Amino acid sequence: MLSGKTVAEHNTRESCWIIVHGKVYDVTEFFGRKIILKYAGKDATQEYEPIHPPDAITTNLPPEKHLGPVEPDTVEKVVVEISDEEKARQERISNRPSLDEILNLHDFEAIAKQVLPEKAWAYYSSASDDEITLRDNHAAYHRIWFRPRILRDVTKVDWSTTILGHKSSMPVYISATALGKLGHPDGELNLTRAAAKYGVIQMIPTLASCSFDEIVDTAQPGQVQFFQLYVNKDRAITKKLVQHAESRGVKALFITVDAPQLGRREKDMRMKFEAEDPSVVSKSGSQGVDRSQGAARAISSFIDPGLNWDDLDWFKSITKMPIILKGVQCWEDALQAYDAGVAGVVLSNHGGRQLDFSRSGIEVLVEVVVNLKEKRGLSFPNEKFALFVDGGVRRATDVLKAVALGATAVGVGRPFLYSFCAYGTEGVEKAIKILHDEFEMNMRLLGARTLKEVVPEMVDASNLQSHTVVPRDDLYANNYESMKYAQLKGSKAKL
Amino acid sequence: MLSGKTVAEHNTRESCWIIVHGKVYDVTEFFGRKIILKYAGKDATQEYEPIHPPDAITTNLPPEKHLGPVEPDTVEKVVVEISDEEKARQERISNRPSLDEILNLHDFEAIAKQVLPEKAWAYYSSASDDEITLRDNHAAYHRIWFRPRILRDVTKVDWSTTILGHKSSMPVYISATALGKLGHPDGELNLTRAAAKYGVIQMIPTLASCSFDEIVDTAQPGQVQFFQLYVNKDRAITKKLVQHAESRGVKALFITVDAPQLGRREKDMRMKFEAEDPSVVSKSGSQGVDRSQGAARAISSFIDPGLNWDDLDWFKSITKMPIILKGVQCWEDALQAYDAGVAGVVLSNHGGRQLDFSRSGIEVLVEVVVNLKEKRGLSFPNEKFALFVDGGVRRATDVLKAVALGATAVGVGRPFLYSFCAYGTEGVEKAIKILHDEFEMNMRLLGARTLKEVVPEMVDASNLQSHTVVPRDDLYANNYESMKYAQLKGSKAKL
Amino acid sequence: MLSGKTVAEHNTRESCWIIVHGKVYDVTEFFGRKIILKYAGKDATQEYEPIHPPDAITTNLPPEKHLGPVEPDTVEKVVVEISDEEKARQERISNRPSLDEILNLHDFEAIAKQVLPEKAWAYYSSASDDEITLRDNHAAYHRIWFRPRILRDVTKVDWSTTILGHKSSMPVYISATALGKLGHPDGELNLTRAAAKYGVIQMIPTLASCSFDEIVDTAQPGQVQFFQLYVNKDRAITKKLVQHAESRGVKALFITVDAPQLGRREKDMRMKFEAEDPSVVSKSGSQGVDRSQGAARAISSFIDPGLNWDDLDWFKSITKMPIILKGVQCWEDALQAYDAGVAGVVLSNHGGRQLDFSRSGIEVLVEVVVNLKEKRGLSFPNEKFALFVDGGVRRATDVLKAVALGATAVGVGRPFLYSFCAYGTEGVEKAIKILHDEFEMNMRLLGARTLKEVVPEMVDASNLQSHTVVPRDDLYANNYESMKYAQLKGSKAKL
Amino acid sequence: MLSGKTVAEHNTRESCWIIVHGKVYDVTEFFGRKIILKYAGKDATQEYEPIHPPDAITTNLPPEKHLGPVEPDTVEKVVVEISDEEKARQERISNRPSLDEILNLHDFEAIAKQVLPEKAWAYYSSASDDEITLRDNHAAYHRIWFRPRILRDVTKVDWSTTILGHKSSMPVYISATALGKLGHPDGELNLTRAAAKYGVIQMIPTLASCSFDEIVDTAQPGQVQFFQLYVNKDRAITKKLVQHAESRGVKALFITVDAPQLGRREKDMRMKFEAEDPSVVSKSGSQGVDRSQGAARAISSFIDPGLNWDDLDWFKSITKMPIILKGVQCWEDALQAYDAGVAGVVLSNHGGRQLDFSRSGIEVLVEVVVNLKEKRGLSFPNEKFALFVDGGVRRATDVLKAVALGATAVGVGRPFLYSFCAYGTEGVEKAIKILHDEFEMNMRLLGARTLKEVVPEMVDASNLQSHTVVPRDDLYANNYESMKYAQLKGSKAKL
Repeated sequence: MLSGKTVAEHNTRESCWIIVHGKVYDVTEFFGRKIILKYAGKDATQEYEPIHPPDAITTNLPPEKHLGPVEPDTVEKVVVEISDEEKARQERISNRPSLDEILNLHDFEAIAKQVLPEKAWAYYSSASDDEITLRDNHAAYHRIWFRPRILRDVTKVDWSTTILGHKSSMPVYISATALGKLGHPDGELNLTRAAAKYGVIQMIPTLASCSFDEIVDTAQPGQVQFFQLYVNKDRAITKKLVQHAESRGVKALFITVDAPQLGRREKDMRMKFEAEDPSVVSKSGSQGVDRSQGAARAISSFIDPGLNWDDLDWFKSITKMPIILKGVQCWEDALQAYDAGVAGVVLSNHGGRQLDFSRSGIEVLVEVVVNLKEKRGLSFPNEKFALFVDGGVRRATDVLKAVALGATAVGVGRPFLYSFCAYGTEGVEKAIKILHDEFEMNMRLLGARTLKEVVPEMVDASNLQSHTVVPRDDLYANNYESMKYAQLKGSKAKL
Repeated sequence: MLSGKTVAEHNTRESCWIIVHGKVYDVTEFFGRKIILKYAGKDATQEYEPIHPPDAITTNLPPEKHLGPVEPDTVEKVVVEISDEEKARQERISNRPSLDEILNLHDFEAIAKQVLPEKAWAYYSSASDDEITLRDNHAAYHRIWFRPRILRDVTKVDWSTTILGHKSSMPVYISATALGKLGHPDGELNLTRAAAKYGVIQMIPTLASCSFDEIVDTAQPGQVQFFQLYVNKDRAITKKLVQHAESRGVKALFITVDAPQLGRREKDMRMKFEAEDPSVVSKSGSQGVDRSQGAARAISSFIDPGLNWDDLDWFKSITKMPIILKGVQCWEDALQAYDAGVAGVVLSNHGGRQLDFSRSGIEVLVEVVVNLKEKRGLSFPNEKFALFVDGGVRRATDVLKAVALGATAVGVGRPFLYSFCAYGTEGVEKAIKILHDEFEMNMRLLGARTLKEVVPEMVDASNLQSHTVVPRDDLYANNYESMKYAQLKGSKAKL
Repeated sequence: MLSGKTVAEHNTRESCWIIVHGKVYDVTEFFGRKIILKYAGKDATQEYEPIHPPDAITTNLPPEKHLGPVEPDTVEKVVVEISDEEKARQERISNRPSLDEILNLHDFEAIAKQVLPEKAWAYYSSASDDEITLRDNHAAYHRIWFRPRILRDVTKVDWSTTILGHKSSMPVYISATALGKLGHPDGELNLTRAAAKYGVIQMIPTLASCSFDEIVDTAQPGQVQFFQLYVNKDRAITKKLVQHAESRGVKALFITVDAPQLGRREKDMRMKFEAEDPSVVSKSGSQGVDRSQGAARAISSFIDPGLNWDDLDWFKSITKMPIILKGVQCWEDALQAYDAGVAGVVLSNHGGRQLDFSRSGIEVLVEVVVNLKEKRGLSFPNEKFALFVDGGVRRATDVLKAVALGATAVGVGRPFLYSFCAYGTEGVEKAIKILHDEFEMNMRLLGARTLKEVVPEMVDASNLQSHTVVPRDDLYANNYESMKYAQLKGSKAKL
Repeated sequence: MLSGKTVAEHNTRESCWIIVHGKVYDVTEFFGRKIILKYAGKDATQEYEPIHPPDAITTNLPPEKHLGPVEPDTVEKVVVEISDEEKARQERISNRPSLDEILNLHDFEAIAKQVLPEKAWAYYSSASDDEITLRDNHAAYHRIWFRPRILRDVTKVDWSTTILGHKSSMPVYISATALGKLGHPDGELNLTRAAAKYGVIQMIPTLASCSFDEIVDTAQPGQVQFFQLYVNKDRAITKKLVQHAESRGVKALFITVDAPQLGRREKDMRMKFEAEDPSVVSKSGSQGVDRSQGAARAISSFIDPGLNWDDLDWFKSITKMPIILKGVQCWEDALQAYDAGVAGVVLSNHGGRQLDFSRSGIEVLVEVVVNLKEKRGLSFPNEKFALFVDGGVRRATDVLKAVALGATAVGVGRPFLYSFCAYGTEGVEKAIKILHDEFEMNMRLLGARTLKEVVPEMVDASNLQSHTVVPRDDLYANNYESMKYAQLKGSKAKL
């Protein structure tokens, strides 16, 4: 049992100990990271908790650096002063409307925006460059219109489906989003619990705040989970992750292929996001990364930009899980993926967080369906080669448009994230219920009894490829100064 | 003669009596409806009046539940406090501009918006999901431009027409809208009276606040009325309604086919619209519907989602009225309707209140005309198979565009509703006069002496199918946070 | 010599005298016009002046109604109180920027808007219905882009041209606009003087505030003027006007064909424009028109809605002036005009003041050129059949686009009107100089030495017919209420 | 040594001396220029410095007008009062955020806009007419979307290239912009220094504030510079400039062909920009130009509007530098340029400062590539005939779009200008670093290892030619008055 006083002496770069959950760790080898040094010799639990899986330290730090428990009473309390801003936020949290007043997925975001810490909101909501793709992801759905059918007996409508052979109560899965504890202490577990209750499949992110095992442990018997993978330069680490996932019963492996380097997300950068990205700690095991090049560069030292088509055989050799490529953005790559024998692709641009001016998944879907039919004779939805899309979905009508155009299911990320940020597990449950309500209504109004009846003829997507109206370029628009007209004397304003 | 005191004792779920217009009713079997329980043992007239046809109770409640009159003096007066908000509204009502200052149909809406009770405005103006279709209904007309002809003798212009064989002073009919008494104590009777005066046809709604017979009784001899029908699961009720309508001289039956379930209208939902929908009381006769699933679900228990093409033969067997399907939204269904032998279709999306992203009636009209010509050799307007459109019309030019493209007539709903909400019967009369003025002007300017001269060549509808500009998604736009630029020290605003 | 007292006794409908410029007139037969009755027995000069040609009364009133001069001292002075609003306007007038600060035609409008009486601004700026066409007239030019040529010797550039055989210093003429004295005491004479100075042709309006002869008398020897004609039901009046114009040396007759009835212009109507339209007084000679039907109806009693193609022979029989039809709006009518042997057409929608959703003249120009080439082998610009366009022009680039597409010249109306409203004759001169400066610059930048070198290949008009972006429908937009999101307790705003 | 007193006596049009950097010059022959007269007999250094190359006077003024040094102590100090506005500006300058907070090129403009003197901002940011082209230059890039490729090994990405045979660290060069000292005392030298550090090529402008030799002298050994040329009517001056440039090692001659006369830039004109344009002083040697015709006319007396294709042979005869035509705006001229044997063209509209409604360079690029392939069999990028574009670029993604479509490199002007206005040389360095960061990121995300892999298939430019959405016409929009609806009594606002 170490005393707090002893720990407190190790508060330098030369010897840096920290306390997390009552245990002491020697993290000297991580020195150089300001954030860690800031807590040297102190209890770092509060800062550590929201953004690291609980087992990150124990897994990544060699056993000899686990110095054992500290005597609680001897640790000097760090008095955290609550800022006025934080007080106002707490006030907003206590003034959240009741869940009954939440009518749609937009509402969760509206509440989350007000109750999240500023940095968390910036991290979650940000996207790359001018965030044009972020917004077009949503806007693209508005370029698709319905051609509903009437006078069909829609007493019973059924929008359940099968995703990669697994039942799902709706053609929607919970897509992977990172750092869930920034917004809620239970992080991704909120999703796991609500998914269980409503028969929805959760995709577990590599960069979860909760540990992989926590998330799997929280699942109910028979609950289906997928795993999203960032591939490490050190393939041994990747192999361990993948095989562990398979051993824990994960049913499919979604390999992210649109992020050889993580995007520049300026809202996030303006926040001077200080916390270490958990990936650095928990997955890469890298030490003293050069942060002077910015967070993006730092993180890219962990993700392998060398990942390529040749690696697919290796993946097949280490796992029997079906492999899906997440982040395909043109028909040529979808075709190549099909020929490479994977089980499907997610037509996605990473929620607008990677390459700005990437087209929305729903737009890419159309060209993929056309070309794979033409070149390989495939029709969609297709059991052997599943097409998923994600990004920008807020309504069941969005999902039904994707299904009509050939998607097996649609990934929803931020809306579920915001729902637990605002209301925890109950928020996610309500979000799913809202989608169910919308599905029932809209299946009836479309005149479709089952998803099979949601056919291409039910949508008019002829405007989908039109990019004549583009989300506003806020930075440019702010700098542009409007033309001024001749003015009366005495009323001349600055040009 | 019951005493108020006796009635007041029956204020529980076990025994629930209410007073309406001085008579006592035992409505215990409706218990479970909070709204009714709230008035248990009391005088419910004020709440009951605006949203129930006066004969709703007598018709629907078995005679033995009619307990007879109450002694007026013994009923405890419910003191209704007038809120400041209501006082302000009354002030606005007294400040309405004179009818002379009303120049167009938009003006009625501008006044109605200010003088209606908040809930009534929310109920009338709301539409489904993000209200994109609601607004595109109007915007679609703005994608059609004129190609007027000159140097024709337009001294006399005549825009009267024939609708299903009945004379109409203009190619416009008053479309069905529900709950008219929310906005004016005379409700739908305002429409009946004005329609009589100006030779316009009124479509009587199933969900009128006034009783069907009141509306028919108010009509002048020879005045033409149509009937809009929601089909009840209990076909006996529907049969009774239809045959009664025919017996009262109604000339056509418009069966609503776009509402197997009523839409989720969020503006309305946010108002926590407490009043029971009259349909539940007066038409379905259902008891204790599960309101925990929301109003939409509740109401759908009355409307039959099982209605389908096979039912048409049954309708033909119970009435000789011509049958028109209201809510057709693609050429395939218009063709099927034609083949099924009905008298016409209304190309409509229910004023944007059902499936969001449905296309406007005017847009659907173009594809219907093309395909019915191509596949059945029909030309339009056509006496044997009438095409109507509704939704979004505000100007005579809108109507003339529809006529040029092949419509027999156009349904106008909310604008007439708003005109009586703002000014009663006189408002509706003024609205009709404005349309007449606009028709005279625009027929002349188009160079058309009669509606037959309003031909397809007079419009350029080549942009109609373009959905590159879409009504603003307010909820998404509110949540999106603009990009911020680098800022001077001291001027940093919250991101 | 009548005494003011005597005149003052004739202040009733039965006997109504008024004083104008010191002379007394018996206008009893005009009774029923509120505006005249208001001045019965009084000096009406101030009200009469701005909107009637000085010879209107003497010409139209039978000699026996001219009662002779009044003794000036005996007329009771009408004390006109200057309102605070008027004082503020006078203040704004004295604060006009110097003409040096006026850089473009927009600037004149910006100043005129601030210095005009409210009613004058409403009358001039208003257009029909929702003013969509008004704004698209200008916007249409923005859908045409340039393809300039380089490395041509543009030391000398010449943008002068010939219009109907008459020299013009630029491919622009001053189009007819009504009621010039509402904005400036010299009215249309400002245009005549500036036109003389800069070699520009003026089109004299039928509804000028100045008399026709005043305008012609003001012209310099050799100055070319055209005449715009509204055709009277009483063809004798029209014949007199036309033959008088020819006898005074007018060079061409522009017959307005887009106004069988004058448009409903709501901005103007909201102003309750009280003054009589001069046309009623000076041209139609009609008595006691029914104003209860509104100003538009009243005015249409003078203009002949029966005017048609058959009338053209009659016009040819009464004048040798070349005849041009003003207000052609589709190629079919342009073709018919050509076949009817007129000298040209103005592709115009009356500045957006007649049929809303008429297409802009520049848009119509393209289809006219294509079809007259295809069907009659014509090329444009063409000496025998001139194509003019008007509406929405603000820049020399607009004019050059029209010329490139085949127009002989472009009519500019409101901008010249606003230039004299803001600065009198000097304003018009400056406006013309600005256009000359812009022509010089832009001819050089286009690489065109003469207008002949301004060829179709210099513009990309492929987006011209696109109406996917439409001017905002302000009335509809005002009524539409944005969607609201879930809100924190205590911050609930009215929906 | 002259005394200040003596100099002060020469303060009239008849004899006008000025002091610059302690030396006295007789500039009487320039009389008529108000700005010079204002400083007659005084020290003009402060006004002279920012907008004239230091050698302008010595080069252009005959030796006999160099009157020699002045005794410093005898010159009366001109006390310049610092205005409140200027104090506020200095305050803003001291509050600039640190360079670390600058995340993109927009940020430099945001800061420059706040720290520049008003006139400098007006001069730099202004463009011609309604500035539609200015803004479409940027917007055009937003009509191009990416089709990125995945699963390529992008560990190493290389975006360096070769421009006219010279190495460049990125496919971007610093384009010529005038009057750099208005924004920073070191003017264009900031660009030279940063370009050296990061291997970027600078194009030296004819109208630089720094002298040509200063700029060349500042370059590092081996640093590549190009020269932008306005051709003088006096070809001897031009010959001298060109041959001097070649002798100093300049590697290419960019002849501006889109400016036979400089554009009307109204923001600039409203500022009443008083300073003489340096071109007049330093290059044209013209005397007493007629400024009453405005600055544009004045400047056009120096630039030769007679420049034409025939001149190209002469240019080839006086220099061996490759010749590039800057300002080509259609494929026809690009073809003619190719046939004329020049080394390349810049598809440019002069940053929107010349002909408004010129199309963006990136839009023209597409038609040039298509036609030169079709008519001359060329493919692009092409070593023998380089295509450059400039205008509107703010992101590396913009550049990569141009490269994908066939451009060799892209010129960036204002963003680098603003970067030194805001932060001097370090600002330019940061701007270049930001671009490098963006290139690295986006090359990886595109799946391109080298610029050769940035192929046409990686972009969807099918909307590029669409001009259905046009930048807002601010002047027109300001003048247009929205429609008003009927209003409650007491709330009537001015129409």
